Amino acid sequence: MQAIVYHGPRDFRVDGIPDAEIREPTDAVVRIERTAICGSDLHLWHGEPLPFSDFAMGHEFLGVVEDVGADVRRFARGDRVLVSCTNGCGSCAMCHDHLYTGCLTTSSKGVLSNIFGNPLLPGGQAEGARVPFADANLLSIPPDLDDEQVLFLTDILPTGYMGADFAEVGPGDVVVVFGCGPVGTFSQLGALLRGAALVIAVDLDDGRLARAEQRGCLPLNPEREDLDERVRELTGGMGADCAVEAVGRAELVRKAVEITRVGGHVGVVGVVTGDEVSLPFMRQVIAKNLTIRAGAVNPQHYWPELLPLIRQGRLDPTQIITHRMPLSEGVRGYEIFDAHAEDVLKVVLQP
Amino acid sequence: MQAIVYHGPRDFRVDGIPDAEIREPTDAVVRIERTAICGSDLHLWHGEPLPFSDFAMGHEFLGVVEDVGADVRRFARGDRVLVSCTNGCGSCAMCHDHLYTGCLTTSSKGVLSNIFGNPLLPGGQAEGARVPFADANLLSIPPDLDDEQVLFLTDILPTGYMGADFAEVGPGDVVVVFGCGPVGTFSQLGALLRGAALVIAVDLDDGRLARAEQRGCLPLNPEREDLDERVRELTGGMGADCAVEAVGRAELVRKAVEITRVGGHVGVVGVVTGDEVSLPFMRQVIAKNLTIRAGAVNPQHYWPELLPLIRQGRLDPTQIITHRMPLSEGVRGYEIFDAHAEDVLKVVLQP
Amino acid sequence: MQAIVYHGPRDFRVDGIPDAEIREPTDAVVRIERTAICGSDLHLWHGEPLPFSDFAMGHEFLGVVEDVGADVRRFARGDRVLVSCTNGCGSCAMCHDHLYTGCLTTSSKGVLSNIFGNPLLPGGQAEGARVPFADANLLSIPPDLDDEQVLFLTDILPTGYMGADFAEVGPGDVVVVFGCGPVGTFSQLGALLRGAALVIAVDLDDGRLARAEQRGCLPLNPEREDLDERVRELTGGMGADCAVEAVGRAELVRKAVEITRVGGHVGVVGVVTGDEVSLPFMRQVIAKNLTIRAGAVNPQHYWPELLPLIRQGRLDPTQIITHRMPLSEGVRGYEIFDAHAEDVLKVVLQP
Amino acid sequence: MQAIVYHGPRDFRVDGIPDAEIREPTDAVVRIERTAICGSDLHLWHGEPLPFSDFAMGHEFLGVVEDVGADVRRFARGDRVLVSCTNGCGSCAMCHDHLYTGCLTTSSKGVLSNIFGNPLLPGGQAEGARVPFADANLLSIPPDLDDEQVLFLTDILPTGYMGADFAEVGPGDVVVVFGCGPVGTFSQLGALLRGAALVIAVDLDDGRLARAEQRGCLPLNPEREDLDERVRELTGGMGADCAVEAVGRAELVRKAVEITRVGGHVGVVGVVTGDEVSLPFMRQVIAKNLTIRAGAVNPQHYWPELLPLIRQGRLDPTQIITHRMPLSEGVRGYEIFDAHAEDVLKVVLQP
Repeated sequence: MQAIVYHGPRDFRVDGIPDAEIREPTDAVVRIERTAICGSDLHLWHGEPLPFSDFAMGHEFLGVVEDVGADVRRFARGDRVLVSCTNGCGSCAMCHDHLYTGCLTTSSKGVLSNIFGNPLLPGGQAEGARVPFADANLLSIPPDLDDEQVLFLTDILPTGYMGADFAEVGPGDVVVVFGCGPVGTFSQLGALLRGAALVIAVDLDDGRLARAEQRGCLPLNPEREDLDERVRELTGGMGADCAVEAVGRAELVRKAVEITRVGGHVGVVGVVTGDEVSLPFMRQVIAKNLTIRAGAVNPQHYWPELLPLIRQGRLDPTQIITHRMPLSEGVRGYEIFDAHAEDVLKVVLQP
Repeated sequence: MQAIVYHGPRDFRVDGIPDAEIREPTDAVVRIERTAICGSDLHLWHGEPLPFSDFAMGHEFLGVVEDVGADVRRFARGDRVLVSCTNGCGSCAMCHDHLYTGCLTTSSKGVLSNIFGNPLLPGGQAEGARVPFADANLLSIPPDLDDEQVLFLTDILPTGYMGADFAEVGPGDVVVVFGCGPVGTFSQLGALLRGAALVIAVDLDDGRLARAEQRGCLPLNPEREDLDERVRELTGGMGADCAVEAVGRAELVRKAVEITRVGGHVGVVGVVTGDEVSLPFMRQVIAKNLTIRAGAVNPQHYWPELLPLIRQGRLDPTQIITHRMPLSEGVRGYEIFDAHAEDVLKVVLQP
Repeated sequence: MQAIVYHGPRDFRVDGIPDAEIREPTDAVVRIERTAICGSDLHLWHGEPLPFSDFAMGHEFLGVVEDVGADVRRFARGDRVLVSCTNGCGSCAMCHDHLYTGCLTTSSKGVLSNIFGNPLLPGGQAEGARVPFADANLLSIPPDLDDEQVLFLTDILPTGYMGADFAEVGPGDVVVVFGCGPVGTFSQLGALLRGAALVIAVDLDDGRLARAEQRGCLPLNPEREDLDERVRELTGGMGADCAVEAVGRAELVRKAVEITRVGGHVGVVGVVTGDEVSLPFMRQVIAKNLTIRAGAVNPQHYWPELLPLIRQGRLDPTQIITHRMPLSEGVRGYEIFDAHAEDVLKVVLQP
Repeated sequence: MQAIVYHGPRDFRVDGIPDAEIREPTDAVVRIERTAICGSDLHLWHGEPLPFSDFAMGHEFLGVVEDVGADVRRFARGDRVLVSCTNGCGSCAMCHDHLYTGCLTTSSKGVLSNIFGNPLLPGGQAEGARVPFADANLLSIPPDLDDEQVLFLTDILPTGYMGADFAEVGPGDVVVVFGCGPVGTFSQLGALLRGAALVIAVDLDDGRLARAEQRGCLPLNPEREDLDERVRELTGGMGADCAVEAVGRAELVRKAVEITRVGGHVGVVGVVTGDEVSLPFMRQVIAKNLTIRAGAVNPQHYWPELLPLIRQGRLDPTQIITHRMPLSEGVRGYEIFDAHAEDVLKVVLQP
């Protein structure tokens, strides 16, 4: 089958690889109908070479069940399903608490090794994928919804929404969201859905800011306005109730801390490159009684909240799609996305 | 000064009564600019005769501070303020927990005696009112908001919103709200603000149902549709996640319990006349692991959530106003409201 | 195999019945080593005749896995396990939320039909039992714990503890627990573990009250002391922060409501016979802003909290055991328990 | 009056200073009966010279009301009271949310300037102190409790307890507390009161570890045992559910993050000197979905939880007192405390 295969940084190729197949009785094989390129895929695109290669990329995908192992009870061949990017066993103590990222079974080979798109768990920018523990990681797609409406439930929609959840956004809050990319978009929509009074959308890209304004946010370009001063002004000098970092840069985590009020909450859902984040603890985190929560996503946890909102027309995730192309042209998709070209926000691929 | 004075059931009169004046150093006197008739005022209109009379009615009012006692620190003559219907001392253990209804000082003469509109605490359907413990019970009206935008923060808006709060409405929930009157309206808007996927608005009045539909609810008239069946149908057979009783009838509290799913939440904010409510405990409340929460309102608790939503244009409370008239015609306002005449939803009076 | 079999009220017999066996690939068969008689078993003992009979009683049991179906992944023959009284499928939307009582699969034949001890799900007062969906309903018993230490994790310990949970007992609270039987005992211990400042244990049986005092509660016999007055006295006139009904009588649910303070919480975990409970809604539930939560137990939800407390010696559930006897003498156990004879608190049976 | 006065690092002197007196109508003057030296006082003892001097030290004190301003309503001359170390106005938006540290009135001159013991708010290691906004910052001492039982409610007891609160310690949790000093002691007791299954107490001082063991903790000296390995061993490889930093060192905040499990909670209540804390964000905070909460204390928020526990004998704060001496010998108290001499844990001074 065809897939976008990792050979090294900036060296992804559409290759033929062996077909996905059942290996364990709890596996399903999904024939993929839609898949997307995620910002975190770009970390491999322009990062250091990995110690391994030749695996299919991608962790946002949906399709039709082609085969199931003997122990799969909830799904059958022909079911239309979407796949959680985070693969849990569904029955360990961590999965019991909806902490699939920390699944005692599937993450035992290393942190985040249970997210699709690595040699242990080949990804879904492909014609098909093997999904371990299918009963715990698939969601039936209601017949009244089309593929693009639900595609982002696989990762980026719950990831962005999780930002609003981690920042404990509630009715009446003033929320600053750093980033107007796909994750930031869903953090903003999540904040509005949870009753925020005002969502301040921060980005350097005026095109993205214009789109943020259209969805009800107040746009703020820190190259043209003083962020700290503007937030103080909008909050009567107190600072934001909540801040969401949806970019993944250490200095923005720090800035999020700085613009949040006493007793406020900071949620970090960007993938922080470089790892280390230094924070002014005494002067800021302690003096202001802050709560900081960060994490990788557990889509399954958020499905019961988000799916009904899509079905009832209260949330339209398709608004982020700017590019659609065949899987065979996926490398061009990476190039566009990496270059921020053509006002790209999200590239959807069709095998 | 002029006021609507209680003389007995259906015997309210616009009378001259002594001017409101400072009695304690923590008092303020407010010259009233807008006041409203509340559904709970009607309980006195068509109830049993009270053991006392000759007091000013009304607990929804705002205006301008005319005088303050020596110990009032946060407000001064000339301030534009609204008044909480529930008067707390602001510093006892109950007020510390935002449970002003149970204030150890102001409610010591009897349950709910600290809600305006009784001989101990004359009401605000008048030209002026004395507000005890002014620092704890007034809210400054931001200059960018007009009277009608904030008037219902005194009672009916937080009361309705509290229904959504008590029913623990959160993102993705299917919510049934019993009642499309003023309280029900704000329970519905509250549920939507808190991220409900679907709000089912129940009423017998088709005019009110049409307005509920306009604000984004699914209308349901139980005289024309089978309520239980329709809820089952809309929830895949599971029942509603949350139910709000915003009418005040024992049989609707019971019905709210019946249509709620296992693990669901019922909030009761209607004033239940007749007092006793019989519930099927083993078959419903226990078997379905339900939580039932009920209460009288503490507006001060909800102000920090609701005021920013009004300021940012995310919540427009004026949509319930159907009638405006001078205070001097207030008795006619009661008659219209009691008769459900002229498609009345809310009557605002101007002294 | 031998089992205590229901033939009608007061007509339970130790009979031979067909051996438990695997029917579905997700089943396990457990050879039972310890089982207990629960207060809710007595409801069948002295209730109306059921429309069916000839089934094994009992829902509190543990033992050794004797056989597993092909799809059971987490348990194998020889494992020492305890069994949740509430049988869920483990993967539906309700089980995902730990609401096993409402499992969309196992409770589809009727409310509470997925609790062991009925014709559809024969009970564990027997030499063996078939456990559907074994992966979701068994707990491995740590080798350092003996049978009696963990036996009550099957039902009565989480049920009692759930009372403290439902009443939202937290540090510093004054808690009234109605009932000093097995459920009440664990509600009291649960309240103390959660940091209650004072637990007032209410019962009519002075022997049970003496034991409650030994475990750190303040005993109160309402036949000798005025309950309302005593609670007022102990709470500076405010009422209890939390109340737990652990008996199952409508008038005690009502009393729990009456003695709770403004903003307080009532948890109901007794099996309320007669079903209907009438509550003074306006004067009490609404005027005092109360929350009432009731339910049947989901032991699996509480295992992660309770098992470590037993292992670390912070909770000793064996303190309720007063009688031990062979399964063959179990009918005598029922008679003693029903008669409140011999200072009985809990009867443990050994097959 | 006599007071311990700051003249510079290691230059504190018992001097005569002007008597405390009423300046504002909301002030009270308290004649001090007991006061204590806090670990945070030592930061001034061995820190950089401050830009100001000649002020009374100390923020843990209690005594008798000697005088009140005209607007003080809840307290009168002769009342026995303790004083919150954090002085709030009691009526701003921050105080309304119990965030007295961020009081819009009292902290307007700078972060933490509203904690006693600075030129703006002279401290309580003195014969008397002026307490602004007395109604919001004093607590009546129940007559059945003696001074030493309640003294630490002024700061160190709620500070330590807040560590357990911030780390969201609940029933069944395994909790690591860094530090066995006064704050750490109360974090440990707080964790146990909240139902922790196991509290691992970490310190380098074997005397302090022995005392931790006596109060029910598992002692761990990281110079003799491998901390990470031991925590893994005690948690089946998962990591601690909760960690509390009660020392105030950046590397311990980092270590707290490292030993906490996926989905766990870290509370920081030590005063972090040097300010900057660098954290491994991607590999730890994000990969493990951690929540970090830090802060300065709001004693008033915790009084309703903690006072009843002391009154009912469930919490004995006096266990940390190792030294008692007259205020006049207070400088010696600082020297002992700073040197960790004489197994000191807490020095109480009597004016």
